[in-house]
Amino acid sequence: MNEALRPQGREQEEARLAALLEALRAGAALRDLAGGHAAAEKQRIADAGLLTLAVPREFGGQFGGADGGLRWSDVYATIRAIARVDSALAHLLGFQCLQVASVELWGSPAQRANWLQGTVEYRWWWGNAVNPLDTRLIAQRDGAGWRLHGKKGFCSGTYGSQMMTVSAHDPVSGNPVFAAVPTTRDGITVHDDWDPIGQRQTDSGTVSFENVEVRAAEVLERPDTPRATLRTLISQGVLTNLFVGLAEGALEEARDYVLENGRPWVNAGIQNVADDPYLQQRFGEMRVQSLAAAVLADRAAKLLDEAWGEGEALAEGRRAEVSLAISEAKIVAHRAALEAGEQLFDACGARATGAALALDRFWRNARVHTLHDPLDYRLRDVGRYTLLRELPQPTLYT
Amino acid sequence: MNEALRPQGREQEEARLAALLEALRAGAALRDLAGGHAAAEKQRIADAGLLTLAVPREFGGQFGGADGGLRWSDVYATIRAIARVDSALAHLLGFQCLQVASVELWGSPAQRANWLQGTVEYRWWWGNAVNPLDTRLIAQRDGAGWRLHGKKGFCSGTYGSQMMTVSAHDPVSGNPVFAAVPTTRDGITVHDDWDPIGQRQTDSGTVSFENVEVRAAEVLERPDTPRATLRTLISQGVLTNLFVGLAEGALEEARDYVLENGRPWVNAGIQNVADDPYLQQRFGEMRVQSLAAAVLADRAAKLLDEAWGEGEALAEGRRAEVSLAISEAKIVAHRAALEAGEQLFDACGARATGAALALDRFWRNARVHTLHDPLDYRLRDVGRYTLLRELPQPTLYT
Amino acid sequence: MNEALRPQGREQEEARLAALLEALRAGAALRDLAGGHAAAEKQRIADAGLLTLAVPREFGGQFGGADGGLRWSDVYATIRAIARVDSALAHLLGFQCLQVASVELWGSPAQRANWLQGTVEYRWWWGNAVNPLDTRLIAQRDGAGWRLHGKKGFCSGTYGSQMMTVSAHDPVSGNPVFAAVPTTRDGITVHDDWDPIGQRQTDSGTVSFENVEVRAAEVLERPDTPRATLRTLISQGVLTNLFVGLAEGALEEARDYVLENGRPWVNAGIQNVADDPYLQQRFGEMRVQSLAAAVLADRAAKLLDEAWGEGEALAEGRRAEVSLAISEAKIVAHRAALEAGEQLFDACGARATGAALALDRFWRNARVHTLHDPLDYRLRDVGRYTLLRELPQPTLYT
Amino acid sequence: MNEALRPQGREQEEARLAALLEALRAGAALRDLAGGHAAAEKQRIADAGLLTLAVPREFGGQFGGADGGLRWSDVYATIRAIARVDSALAHLLGFQCLQVASVELWGSPAQRANWLQGTVEYRWWWGNAVNPLDTRLIAQRDGAGWRLHGKKGFCSGTYGSQMMTVSAHDPVSGNPVFAAVPTTRDGITVHDDWDPIGQRQTDSGTVSFENVEVRAAEVLERPDTPRATLRTLISQGVLTNLFVGLAEGALEEARDYVLENGRPWVNAGIQNVADDPYLQQRFGEMRVQSLAAAVLADRAAKLLDEAWGEGEALAEGRRAEVSLAISEAKIVAHRAALEAGEQLFDACGARATGAALALDRFWRNARVHTLHDPLDYRLRDVGRYTLLRELPQPTLYT
Repeated sequence: MNEALRPQGREQEEARLAALLEALRAGAALRDLAGGHAAAEKQRIADAGLLTLAVPREFGGQFGGADGGLRWSDVYATIRAIARVDSALAHLLGFQCLQVASVELWGSPAQRANWLQGTVEYRWWWGNAVNPLDTRLIAQRDGAGWRLHGKKGFCSGTYGSQMMTVSAHDPVSGNPVFAAVPTTRDGITVHDDWDPIGQRQTDSGTVSFENVEVRAAEVLERPDTPRATLRTLISQGVLTNLFVGLAEGALEEARDYVLENGRPWVNAGIQNVADDPYLQQRFGEMRVQSLAAAVLADRAAKLLDEAWGEGEALAEGRRAEVSLAISEAKIVAHRAALEAGEQLFDACGARATGAALALDRFWRNARVHTLHDPLDYRLRDVGRYTLLRELPQPTLYT
Repeated sequence: MNEALRPQGREQEEARLAALLEALRAGAALRDLAGGHAAAEKQRIADAGLLTLAVPREFGGQFGGADGGLRWSDVYATIRAIARVDSALAHLLGFQCLQVASVELWGSPAQRANWLQGTVEYRWWWGNAVNPLDTRLIAQRDGAGWRLHGKKGFCSGTYGSQMMTVSAHDPVSGNPVFAAVPTTRDGITVHDDWDPIGQRQTDSGTVSFENVEVRAAEVLERPDTPRATLRTLISQGVLTNLFVGLAEGALEEARDYVLENGRPWVNAGIQNVADDPYLQQRFGEMRVQSLAAAVLADRAAKLLDEAWGEGEALAEGRRAEVSLAISEAKIVAHRAALEAGEQLFDACGARATGAALALDRFWRNARVHTLHDPLDYRLRDVGRYTLLRELPQPTLYT
Repeated sequence: MNEALRPQGREQEEARLAALLEALRAGAALRDLAGGHAAAEKQRIADAGLLTLAVPREFGGQFGGADGGLRWSDVYATIRAIARVDSALAHLLGFQCLQVASVELWGSPAQRANWLQGTVEYRWWWGNAVNPLDTRLIAQRDGAGWRLHGKKGFCSGTYGSQMMTVSAHDPVSGNPVFAAVPTTRDGITVHDDWDPIGQRQTDSGTVSFENVEVRAAEVLERPDTPRATLRTLISQGVLTNLFVGLAEGALEEARDYVLENGRPWVNAGIQNVADDPYLQQRFGEMRVQSLAAAVLADRAAKLLDEAWGEGEALAEGRRAEVSLAISEAKIVAHRAALEAGEQLFDACGARATGAALALDRFWRNARVHTLHDPLDYRLRDVGRYTLLRELPQPTLYT
Repeated sequence: MNEALRPQGREQEEARLAALLEALRAGAALRDLAGGHAAAEKQRIADAGLLTLAVPREFGGQFGGADGGLRWSDVYATIRAIARVDSALAHLLGFQCLQVASVELWGSPAQRANWLQGTVEYRWWWGNAVNPLDTRLIAQRDGAGWRLHGKKGFCSGTYGSQMMTVSAHDPVSGNPVFAAVPTTRDGITVHDDWDPIGQRQTDSGTVSFENVEVRAAEVLERPDTPRATLRTLISQGVLTNLFVGLAEGALEEARDYVLENGRPWVNAGIQNVADDPYLQQRFGEMRVQSLAAAVLADRAAKLLDEAWGEGEALAEGRRAEVSLAISEAKIVAHRAALEAGEQLFDACGARATGAALALDRFWRNARVHTLHDPLDYRLRDVGRYTLLRELPQPTLYT
């Protein structure tokens, strides 16, 4: 948060956020065990005013503007804070912001006005059905609009949402059709079939489309500009900050557990567990790794803020630099999240493995979420740039 | 298995084991999700004749003797094979063998005859209540025998067992009292309270003792010899081979999954997932790591076989060399199991994270089991030896 | 460099620096092989105006002031740039700045005026004899001043210097006596005995003192303030930025070598070495690691700038936060430098091992310099803070 | 060494080897600094009877036979022991054995008799000019023989040798011509141009051939059998055992240095350096890593012994299993050698960096030698096997 530009009322917002975090943390283990849909917690997030983090101030939201509105670095800071206590809910909020940004980046003036004001006024949760690797959803011309048939998987946030973005394949042109529709539109069925080993409450199940109408006014015509491709980077930034939050959250849980329950190992020759040289070393490692991730994520967010600030003038090269910075941060954060989720147990010991504590949720959440796209190819891309100074091209993931 | 010494009928036994492994593998994910007690599978293990792996041939079992009975390296090979498909059940079998070995090492001729023949005749499953870090169980003199009061935690295998070893604290002498008793003895309550994040069917819950009689003939008088301390090493060898089995099992699952379901990454530029250079690299890493663990575990088992073969003549120094070798193997196997459990997902991708597949059980099982005692202090002990040539002293864990 | 505040003439300075870097890089391998004293290159550094980087503008130098003078982050940027091409010379420059800072932090107004103006006017190189672990140098009262007897090792930069700081042990009080003296003072002998495996031209040999006069006016009375302890942090920041420069330099060398000489491996199935997937991966790893180090070092430098800006008002807690940040950066940079020095060869292949190329100097330089103080204890300190929120106390190394 | 089969006089041989090792260790640092040719030490190795390790007993050597001759595992044990103290000389001895094996595997009965008896009788050192990646050496038909023109690089052991193997490219057939010739043959010039950063005394310089005669009787007609391809595996086994020896040697040097010179770190709070928990951890890590490498190398050597024992009946699949086992061992040993060479300094501290000690030779030797062929592709091959059960095909390196 830019201290100098803090809007009035920010303190109250922070207190509200702190209360929300406390409440989310208290129930996180239980929700992980339960899986399914976190309706009550989504309501709390809405009540805390977080649905409009990415909605521009001109439409009643909190983002941007000349007078101290939020920037992406601020939005990410909130997502990261939530990820520390519940990375599934953080994902829902992150993707809320991402859909809002899609409208902002790709929408016409009328679309932006309708949907962004609507988000403020009606407190819409946004879902999506845009997974680019799933090509089962087909768009058929229907007058000036389209009809959708088929399915999409990994539709995070759609269950329980009021609006959704959707991407379908037009076999005639070979291009995708991108639109925003009410989730309640006739023919849309949101399946409650998301049951993974981690990130269990992201509502990322399948959505079926049976002859679903998409009106002409609902189609988002993605501009052919570098700025329009920022959507992918915003999305990758959400993931990166989730990983950072997971690493920091695991470290925080480990610390609390050790201070409360830790006992020196029987052969350690010490009285107080906190004097254990290997425990100190482990906390040092966890700290250094999560900090490196956080600092790289902050750097990338700052570059994104600057690129966003360029507006339509954003040049390809500058966009590519943001992409590179996000990849660099994501690689480090990916590893930090997995490592912290595993080392948490080395720090806490055997008694921390009770199922009711669900302390393995940090590793499971990190493990599920870090498979969104493979680290190997992201590292390859960074390596190509390093070796050849070839900045990454916009792709579905970079 | 010593090829030259194979008894007749060994082929049938191997076929029986293969069928058992196949069956255990088929239900492993479901059992992990269910937790609780695997009564049917324990019966299958008993039916496969595995309860007497460590019972000497002189008492009707399969172990030792001059004519080709099993050695510890053979017993471990079977435990490892089961751990590849279900490390919780492997733990039960491993601890069965450990209690049998306790009787063999610490029992009088009469105790050995009674309990080891009984194990063969009545197909007893053995449990235990000997966790040395839990000091809540008290032994009180009662004539020539004792009365036990209190509790023990982490009593692997006791639920559903017929016999159990037990260790209690005698506050008068300050020494432990070690005994074997029927699990059904009056006053013993085996609680069904084991609910951890991994190793979910090891029946490692709490056992309460309310004025439980221990007869003089049931007390195991641990001899003050190096041989008697082999019990700890046998136990550590069980854990080591569990870790090896977990690493190998995760690798095998990853391989099967990739060959059946793998798809090349969208930006990889390849047609066949098996041509992915990073996937090949990852399988190479998993292989090398699990192999190093296996070879070190085999080396340690061979040294244990030799030490066991020394009988009462076993010298301290030789016992210490076995201890060192087991620690060295255990460190490498510990890491291999955790790594393989995590890398399995990098190999298989996002679709492998469905809860029903429960592929995270490899990591969770490894994570729970590798917390039995801290790696840090085992590494320290190996380092002390390396630096100072001080062979490790017998302790509760080495 | 704060862009907005750039003084006039900065462009010329940058061109001068670029020319210096080019020249230093060209001869780096030869100088590494030769060892000894780099008189000509030290002259070039002096000619480039770098001796006064840390001298305040009020005394004719380039540092601080309200009107856009340099900050520590700027000084470190220059040291890091030189470390990319020659980390031994970077160390000399870094320690020049450190001695200047010692005078600034600990000197009286008269001392500051004399010695800092003198540094500008006479282009003094500063050496030191202050290694706190070497207790062989004794201070004896002599009127208002002292007489020094004994030796110090690891006296970086003293050979060829005009001025030096010195620290001696006063056996009467048990405290150190800290002073600045001309290197030519009677009784001082600077031995040309520095012959290590890396950092070969840092002139870090032994200095002998035979009844050396230290006048009262030469004694630096270290104030008992948090600010005075910034000296240690400035020193640790120099090391950290050296490590970052080494990592970046090794990466740059690897890149240049591969692009110029690289050939695809015979079994790789590719035409162009730059298409090698493992080479790309390796450059990705090197980049991410050196970047993390750089970003953490920048963060620490910025905190140091802020702490410095507090002047005498600097509070303990704030000083400790800088200390922590520098430790965090140093840990990551330490590893990045060693890793890059090793991986350079995996990237370049067997033909890069010719002694004349001296490409192993990156690893050797990193290896020598990262032994200044042990990583283990720095990590422990960070871990203690993480676990207990105990901010590090000022010590000789933190 | 197969204890049961030890020939008489073995004890004397072992004492002779121990004396050799002691002598080689004493001068290792100096020889590393000097580089060039180790004529005196090569003479000592010859005097210790090691030139005939791989010469079959039927020709007067020490290898094979039914009555307790050496096996490859024995030969490797000797090479590894020398590598602990001087890996350059170990390389020379290893390649001596490799050339002898080439004659044994590829030679006609007459060639084997001549050259292997000659090796015993005249104590020939064998060099080579067979680097398969260097295609500059051309073979031209000349009656029943050939004429050679051109150059080869990396001709280990040729300087100072009496005999050498040579491989040249026949542009007519496109095949290589393989032969053995006296190093003194007219037209052969062995250049003293080997000056690398490590493995400095392996005499691996360039050899020029100016119209060099190769007689028909000197041509080695490589049989088209799996057994003939064992040559590559023998070579890779030599490298693997060199890496193991380097790791073990570095560990041993670190131990000796610490016990003799180590001092506790100023902030460690301990009296005796050997009580440092992180130092103990480090020695534990080094031990575990070098042990894993050694045990895997032993396993591979045993498989090679068995494959060798198959004689001409050796099947492709069995040969491939040896190849795989050697790759697995080589990967682990490669890393162990580099790691130990680096960690040696963490254990020993800053004072161990004096150039005269040349303790960096372990890392430099490992670094040069591990670049023989890239780890990446070896790991890939192991991964391919793991994933697809494709056993590696015979190549120049596997």
